[in-house]
Amino acid sequence: MQFLRHPRLPSPAEPPSWSPSPTRICPAALAAPQFPRKLFTSTAPAASCGSAWLGDFTLNSAAPPAPPRGSGAPARRPPAAPLGAHTVTQPPPGLGGAGSVGALQPAAERRAGGGAGAGAGRARGGMARTVVELFYDVVSPYSWLGFEVLCRYQHVWNIDLRLRPAFLGGIMQATGNKPPAMLPRRGEYMLKDIKRMAKYYQVPVKISEDVFRRILGTSSLQAMRFITAIDMTEPRYLEPLSREFWMRFWSQHEDISQPDNILTVARQAGLTSELSQKLLEMISTPAVKNRLKETTEEALKYGAFGMPAVVAHFHGEPHLFFGSDRLELLGSIIGEKWLGPVPSVPSPKM
Amino acid sequence: MQFLRHPRLPSPAEPPSWSPSPTRICPAALAAPQFPRKLFTSTAPAASCGSAWLGDFTLNSAAPPAPPRGSGAPARRPPAAPLGAHTVTQPPPGLGGAGSVGALQPAAERRAGGGAGAGAGRARGGMARTVVELFYDVVSPYSWLGFEVLCRYQHVWNIDLRLRPAFLGGIMQATGNKPPAMLPRRGEYMLKDIKRMAKYYQVPVKISEDVFRRILGTSSLQAMRFITAIDMTEPRYLEPLSREFWMRFWSQHEDISQPDNILTVARQAGLTSELSQKLLEMISTPAVKNRLKETTEEALKYGAFGMPAVVAHFHGEPHLFFGSDRLELLGSIIGEKWLGPVPSVPSPKM
Repeated sequence: MQFLRHPRLPSPAEPPSWSPSPTRICPAALAAPQFPRKLFTSTAPAASCGSAWLGDFTLNSAAPPAPPRGSGAPARRPPAAPLGAHTVTQPPPGLGGAGSVGALQPAAERRAGGGAGAGAGRARGGMARTVVELFYDVVSPYSWLGFEVLCRYQHVWNIDLRLRPAFLGGIMQATGNKPPAMLPRRGEYMLKDIKRMAKYYQVPVKISEDVFRRILGTSSLQAMRFITAIDMTEPRYLEPLSREFWMRFWSQHEDISQPDNILTVARQAGLTSELSQKLLEMISTPAVKNRLKETTEEALKYGAFGMPAVVAHFHGEPHLFFGSDRLELLGSIIGEKWLGPVPSVPSPKM
Repeated sequence: MQFLRHPRLPSPAEPPSWSPSPTRICPAALAAPQFPRKLFTSTAPAASCGSAWLGDFTLNSAAPPAPPRGSGAPARRPPAAPLGAHTVTQPPPGLGGAGSVGALQPAAERRAGGGAGAGAGRARGGMARTVVELFYDVVSPYSWLGFEVLCRYQHVWNIDLRLRPAFLGGIMQATGNKPPAMLPRRGEYMLKDIKRMAKYYQVPVKISEDVFRRILGTSSLQAMRFITAIDMTEPRYLEPLSREFWMRFWSQHEDISQPDNILTVARQAGLTSELSQKLLEMISTPAVKNRLKETTEEALKYGAFGMPAVVAHFHGEPHLFFGSDRLELLGSIIGEKWLGPVPSVPSPKM
């Protein structure tokens, strides 16, 4: 399989180079028309952390219990196919990774099981895979870094990656956490850190001058509901759609909170306008709202206090890793080797 | 050169295994008597960040300017030999690292230059080395991780490591930063994170039940002054002495704030009792107090808001890295390859 390049890559003059996951770029996206870039026109006020983010989001339990130990089973997850339904092919021998599984199998099939169950996924040949859940919000740039690296490693490590769109505002509210950049010194540092990390990780995050105003003034609630809706209906679009939201907000510096902009993102991800309209209607339904709440509550139950939150189900226990900088450590726990943020992907044997 | 093992290693029953830097374990320390472990008996109250930490420490400038760009020259540093005085031998060709330099040359000689100047150190053969400063405080467990890994990498990468003992309490006060564990959720997570990181990094940090009470109730001010005093008088002991403070506070869970305990640490590091007594007298002198202030202010000028703070002087610019989890990124910036937290050390050509 060829390494697909994203149709809206930074131009050659724009470092850093961009390494998306080598699969799951929806073919429709490749044919999608180029949408003219629009200047950021949101009139949302720069808010302190809290109300502007939260919208009508409320958690069922404001003070969640400590993360469960000894069980990775998510609570209050809508009925979904059991883990056994994952038709994961056995990775090529000697690779120690999932190899070309993602390329051989529709993402929808891989994700049909929804939330991670206790322990690990079972490959068809009886070979256990470590279920790794990534809880993320597209308003978080470090989530993007973690997302891209894990999307790459799902083809290298023997893991079954589950993308879990959640709502950072809800996590912050429930835990009392504040955006780290609220400390001015840390904010200054973070801008440099994100820039350097993005370059090294080969993810096209770009830092605008008004980055903090944009983050604090933008609610990702509707975007995360939209992403949740796709996860519930056409999960094969979950990865490209999430990526397009990050592209728009963190690379192009455009809004992702308004319906028109959400539709633009959906088009970039290759969704038909019928599907996009349907999803837009879904985001105000209790089904979607509750699903996002539940996923956010699951992250809280695992101990999350920010994002990205990675939960590896290993030896019957969930292990939480916070941030995009603990993936080498994650590898060491699950017995996989860290090969840097841009590992080479083994060629499929086709 | 043989890989020296620390005489007070965890017993075989105590994982993790412990990988100190392969050099600079003072031979005297190897012969030092075993000091009986004493239970932690400090009666210092658990304080919120602030007074208990700070003692009589005050910075000259409470609100330091933004870190200077284009110059790595530290300000208000006591006169010291210029960078040219560093008699750094050329690393063996092909190693891309300092090779056996640490083993061939006394640490005192390497450190005689004091603070890092602009740009990089120059090896005798004209080969430039990247000056990497590590600002640390022994009350910080992540500083210990960063310290050990950089002590290892100084023999692998083409860097000139400068250990810069500073005072975390002063950094927190000046920047308004709070200990991250003040957020309960983050605190819970950090305990697990430190435990896993320590195991993976092969540094014998041990987490006690009362860890937060101990941190908040212990001032490292006298310890850091003592370490500063050794840096000013016998810098070859700087590395082993710093390590012994961490061993005592973070592995043995004993006090490091009282004079008797400081003397015990000094003995473990191989200092004579005469030298230790001299240093103990020095810590109340303006010379030592001011030096610690100045180093802390330097860290602030580079943009530090916590520790460890690593500053790499590369291409005429200081680059700040916060935490022990940015060393792979540091390598990518200075053109060195990350080989994990326990790299193999090339054999010296002797």
